[in-house]
Amino acid sequence: MADDANTRERILRTAVGLFQRQGYHATGLNQVLADAKAPKGSLYFHFPRGKEQLAAAAVVTGGAELGDELCGTLADATDPVEGLAAMARILGGKLTDSGYRAGSPLASVALDAAGDSEPIRAACARGYASWGELLMGRLDGWGVPEGQRESLATTVIAALEGALLLARVKRDLAPLYEVAERLGDLVAAQCPTPTGL
Amino acid sequence: MADDANTRERILRTAVGLFQRQGYHATGLNQVLADAKAPKGSLYFHFPRGKEQLAAAAVVTGGAELGDELCGTLADATDPVEGLAAMARILGGKLTDSGYRAGSPLASVALDAAGDSEPIRAACARGYASWGELLMGRLDGWGVPEGQRESLATTVIAALEGALLLARVKRDLAPLYEVAERLGDLVAAQCPTPTGL
Repeated sequence: MADDANTRERILRTAVGLFQRQGYHATGLNQVLADAKAPKGSLYFHFPRGKEQLAAAAVVTGGAELGDELCGTLADATDPVEGLAAMARILGGKLTDSGYRAGSPLASVALDAAGDSEPIRAACARGYASWGELLMGRLDGWGVPEGQRESLATTVIAALEGALLLARVKRDLAPLYEVAERLGDLVAAQCPTPTGL
Repeated sequence: MADDANTRERILRTAVGLFQRQGYHATGLNQVLADAKAPKGSLYFHFPRGKEQLAAAAVVTGGAELGDELCGTLADATDPVEGLAAMARILGGKLTDSGYRAGSPLASVALDAAGDSEPIRAACARGYASWGELLMGRLDGWGVPEGQRESLATTVIAALEGALLLARVKRDLAPLYEVAERLGDLVAAQCPTPTGL
């Protein structure tokens, strides 16, 4: 039914934001329900396996949305240096808009819960794998040789996740922009006609 | 008194390990006391501001110990490529020995609690700043020009933090070793006589 679908969507959307900002353990189901203005029974109706299932769904949804947004930005950029800088501006905007709370939709839950929950670990791993696929597609578009793409994509994702963490802790976007600039150069160096160097 | 100092040390050491593996919110003070075999009143005697103070102290202690260990490894290495690879082996060993739980002593607490607690945020920021200082000293030793050192150190720390996260989520050390190899090349490219390229 339409209303059910709307309720499920509201719960999921609220959960994406809360888990992203607070991590797994600090986020309570009562807070999700209250913020989503959802009736008490609706959470277990839509997510019968409870908080664990909701967190896994939030990781998949939040990860896919951010991946699509960042990938679109990279596709619009003329070269890796500009592309990485544009990605950093988007991520930095989300951080400052949220008072340095909205970092990666994957990292908070991953560090907090992936060690104890196999469904959550698997959801985070799937999220990172899909970011990797998107990025490898873009590296292909920029002409990075096939043998270089996977480890380069892993390095870009790792460094951006770490830079988001440093920026949150310092409450300063400088680490994010510094790291993005280094990554832009690193990727450009693997392109057939290096640009922006 | 000797016994007091021992009790404080046992509580702190236990806290370093638990916060590193479980994050802030999942770690309870009763678990710390039980694992440290410390009497109930001793925690508030040694850490009168409770869990927040204990977590901040654990971040500073765990961060300084790992920083010293990794810095010693870098100092023994003949070049950045070998140095970064040796760092990755140490971090990887700690991950596998702990069933992929003991990642960074800073990251778990930082993502989990730095948004809500200023003392914990400040302790994490101090931890990252001290890692940055140690690494910049080493980059100096390898001949990296002064103007390059800060952003290079930030990139190395960010990428290693992110790589530890990816390795934990995938339960696989490959991301850690791939990223370390890229970082070794990145640093070597800034040295006056690039080695290992």
